[in-house]
Amino acid sequence: MTRSMRFSDPHIEMAHGAGGKASRRLIEGLLAPILFDKPSEPLGDAALLLLNGTALAITTDSFVVKPLSFPGGSIGELAVNGTVNDLAVSAARAEALVVTYVLEAGLATAILEAETRALARAAKCAGVVIAGGDTKVVEYGKADQMYVTTCGIGRPIDGVVISPSSVCPGDKIILSGPIGDHGITILLARGELDLEADLRSDTRPVLPLVEALARASGPGIRWMRDPTRGGVATALNELARDCGLGIHLNEEAIPVRDAVRGACELLGLDPLHIANEGQFLAVMAPESADAGLEALRRAPGGSEARMIGEVRERPQGTVLVGTRYGGSRVVDMLVGDPLPRIC
Amino acid sequence: MTRSMRFSDPHIEMAHGAGGKASRRLIEGLLAPILFDKPSEPLGDAALLLLNGTALAITTDSFVVKPLSFPGGSIGELAVNGTVNDLAVSAARAEALVVTYVLEAGLATAILEAETRALARAAKCAGVVIAGGDTKVVEYGKADQMYVTTCGIGRPIDGVVISPSSVCPGDKIILSGPIGDHGITILLARGELDLEADLRSDTRPVLPLVEALARASGPGIRWMRDPTRGGVATALNELARDCGLGIHLNEEAIPVRDAVRGACELLGLDPLHIANEGQFLAVMAPESADAGLEALRRAPGGSEARMIGEVRERPQGTVLVGTRYGGSRVVDMLVGDPLPRIC
Repeated sequence: MTRSMRFSDPHIEMAHGAGGKASRRLIEGLLAPILFDKPSEPLGDAALLLLNGTALAITTDSFVVKPLSFPGGSIGELAVNGTVNDLAVSAARAEALVVTYVLEAGLATAILEAETRALARAAKCAGVVIAGGDTKVVEYGKADQMYVTTCGIGRPIDGVVISPSSVCPGDKIILSGPIGDHGITILLARGELDLEADLRSDTRPVLPLVEALARASGPGIRWMRDPTRGGVATALNELARDCGLGIHLNEEAIPVRDAVRGACELLGLDPLHIANEGQFLAVMAPESADAGLEALRRAPGGSEARMIGEVRERPQGTVLVGTRYGGSRVVDMLVGDPLPRIC
Repeated sequence: MTRSMRFSDPHIEMAHGAGGKASRRLIEGLLAPILFDKPSEPLGDAALLLLNGTALAITTDSFVVKPLSFPGGSIGELAVNGTVNDLAVSAARAEALVVTYVLEAGLATAILEAETRALARAAKCAGVVIAGGDTKVVEYGKADQMYVTTCGIGRPIDGVVISPSSVCPGDKIILSGPIGDHGITILLARGELDLEADLRSDTRPVLPLVEALARASGPGIRWMRDPTRGGVATALNELARDCGLGIHLNEEAIPVRDAVRGACELLGLDPLHIANEGQFLAVMAPESADAGLEALRRAPGGSEARMIGEVRERPQGTVLVGTRYGGSRVVDMLVGDPLPRIC
């Protein structure tokens, strides 16, 4: 964590919510130093707490995706899966969720009902109870249909202790499946581009996959993250910075569907920066990596998991991608916000 | 709970977020049946859960107050105190909060910083740790500066078990202090009325008062609620309905500041419908009521607590107010939304 970071932008811009560099500056340069007592710990996807001697994990996210529904999902599912997944990659099994709505006056009740049903279905599918909620309404023009916030609490998965500081040179990097489906699906669903593709959001709970990995090689899991806003590149850049090591990716090994690759080429985007809502990254101790990958690939929904790279001493704090032509390039965090409001 | 309630309004309106009758119809007629498995339990301010054998309470609220700051407080404080108080009146001590922001692009960083500091200060004052958060940004015109959502988890206060079903005829009703300060302060702070008054929001954590009451007469506490949106009248109507008894209030005993009474008379509002952010109601077993009130009045910030009424067999499900002239009137839940976005 860059302690000396200072946020001096006079106004908030879309990029500050995009999950990339600008978001980091806002969080680490302004918000975290005010809110958190212990700035020495890297910010993870969920916080671990002791309540009356019982360990639990807690996480929260607001969802402002536009449009509300898209091929493969909608804001209701996203709000459940996003929070369940933040817990899963923090090695915790979601037990209960609470949900709040900020609704724009004039919203069709049919939309609210459909999204509430999507939320309930996704919770059932993820095996999590909805324990409570709150509803606020703001004037027409003061929200975009509806915003949803979920907070989840979970129980730690036994035998899995993750931290960027446990990552070592030689560790292997596993990715659970193809990247970019969610971000590109949202982009196309807005209909602002003259592009069509047979593509669906990958939104799903990754907990069953994380549990399969934990059963096969729990103690070998050093770190996990779901590469949502900012994509795989941003998640791994944060890891590289937090552990002070070099992340080497093998471009050919990273699964990207043709439709995603095509859209990215047309739009000048890198699939490594595109958001995912149903994938996760795991750094594995070298002796556990093969067994872990095998278990993941045998689990339902895990057949496209791949070993995509490894951790080395150098270059410190950097993500390098080896291309199919033998060269390599540095991949930075997401800069700017090419895809606003994707979750 | 009216099981047969059915929500058939085609669109969402401001009143659906006001905490009164329309909110109840939306929640009980549409949202709760879809989201919750156990519609047989009245909806409280927080949910009680067992996690790995440990009891905990969880609650969440979104805050959309307008304006963001006002005499006596601001959205940052409100977001902490509101959640701490929902836990307190559920007989739980807040231990950790998580917070999310939905920010409007163009928001001045100075406002975000001021509200984040207010949030941190309020958390410190309430003795609760901020454990994590999330930030989203939406386009200019898609939010009103900033919305804040907090979720809190707490540890149950030993020896206090509350439920509307334990409320009995003869029980006494205690109110912690003067009502209406918050709602009228917000109304005046908007500057749309040509009214001025020396009034401040009552936003504060009520936990110290709840703890004082619990220490003095924990087992005598049957029910608690913080009368926020919809005010004392709505909170007690919900209780009357949930316990099937009659609530009799003594109008002269209910503390209302002159400025609040004056503004309500001018505007045709009933102070019993105005929101509070630093008060709570407690129903006490008759033999515990005097000792509880005494303890409350001795606690810092509790000197204006009063016994305001009692529970009787009849009229079932109804709140009656005995006026200073000897008559009595039925006080219903809040209908409509005379004061939008007060929290």
